[in-house]
Amino acid sequence: MATRTISKPRGRPNNRFGDRRIEVLRAAANIFSDLGFRQATLEDVARELGMTRAALYHYARSKDALLTACGDIARQQLIEALGLSRGEPDGRARLAAFFRRYAEIVSEDFGRCFVLTDFSEMAEDERETTRKAQLALGKAVAVMIEEGIADGSVRRCKPVVTSRLLYAAFNGIARLPAGPDRPAALEMADDFLEVLFEGLVPRS
Amino acid sequence: MATRTISKPRGRPNNRFGDRRIEVLRAAANIFSDLGFRQATLEDVARELGMTRAALYHYARSKDALLTACGDIARQQLIEALGLSRGEPDGRARLAAFFRRYAEIVSEDFGRCFVLTDFSEMAEDERETTRKAQLALGKAVAVMIEEGIADGSVRRCKPVVTSRLLYAAFNGIARLPAGPDRPAALEMADDFLEVLFEGLVPRS
Repeated sequence: MATRTISKPRGRPNNRFGDRRIEVLRAAANIFSDLGFRQATLEDVARELGMTRAALYHYARSKDALLTACGDIARQQLIEALGLSRGEPDGRARLAAFFRRYAEIVSEDFGRCFVLTDFSEMAEDERETTRKAQLALGKAVAVMIEEGIADGSVRRCKPVVTSRLLYAAFNGIARLPAGPDRPAALEMADDFLEVLFEGLVPRS
Repeated sequence: MATRTISKPRGRPNNRFGDRRIEVLRAAANIFSDLGFRQATLEDVARELGMTRAALYHYARSKDALLTACGDIARQQLIEALGLSRGEPDGRARLAAFFRRYAEIVSEDFGRCFVLTDFSEMAEDERETTRKAQLALGKAVAVMIEEGIADGSVRRCKPVVTSRLLYAAFNGIARLPAGPDRPAALEMADDFLEVLFEGLVPRS
């Protein structure tokens, strides 16, 4: 017990491990998104980090374990985005707040990997977890739409279909190639929301 | 020359080869979409067709050649859809006609494979051809939007961004899992178009 009090504050080594782990996961998420999960190898991830395969093994035992760890972070970010949107005053404002944050998340490392990795590439456990998360997210947005219809902020429409449309549209943001022409996530989100809210038919 | 007139009408053997080839390509497109192009093997395609690998080799020399042949059919269908939409009276009607047909195409074998196969999985030639086709398709829809703004059928908006939004939304139709709950392509297209045209904000 005494050793704990000597030189290093408690927990410091663990935090350092934690920071490095996030760095490893971030590199993995980007490699998986850029090369495609199936094509990417643990060697690719190790090389990106300037690590040996043996050192990488310290942080994750397999490529599937890396994907699950990345997916867990994305799912956590998305749950937080749902939580955030609940503070908004009506259904339409909740939709806007959620999808502005969604656009940011799916433009970044973990969210991009979450959207770009196909079910067909995942191990069974991860596929099941992702499927459940997608169902819950789809349902949460359908509820925001229902609330908006009830409070008068959203036009009468089919909530489940409209939820699908909104996710499909915003997932397109994750699929846009990087590069100097790529607009910022929030700018795209606002442009998309303007069309989705106002519609393409001129208002008289 | 005389043999041509004896028993079989000219072209028949070629057509039979052509029919069988389409059958082979259709099976390949479905296998690529369901398993993911990288995971799928020529053995998977041959097995689906009840063919040997040697017999399959008759129709395509490699998995990449199969993907390119499938992509060529999808690109041809999409070009035809653009042509069809040109008969419509205004920009908005052209958008509706094109995306109703687009929804059908991307719900079927070749179009689905075209949307679901990622750039990272393609051989360089196919990637280049697909990139060019996507640019041309994106541009064609941006022009319909511009025409709609000019003729008063479409609200003033950013044509390039809106074109991206429309494709992202309708590509979501290709990604919806098959199954008894999956609505028909045209039904989804009409539901999506209603939201995109009318907007989510109630009209007063």
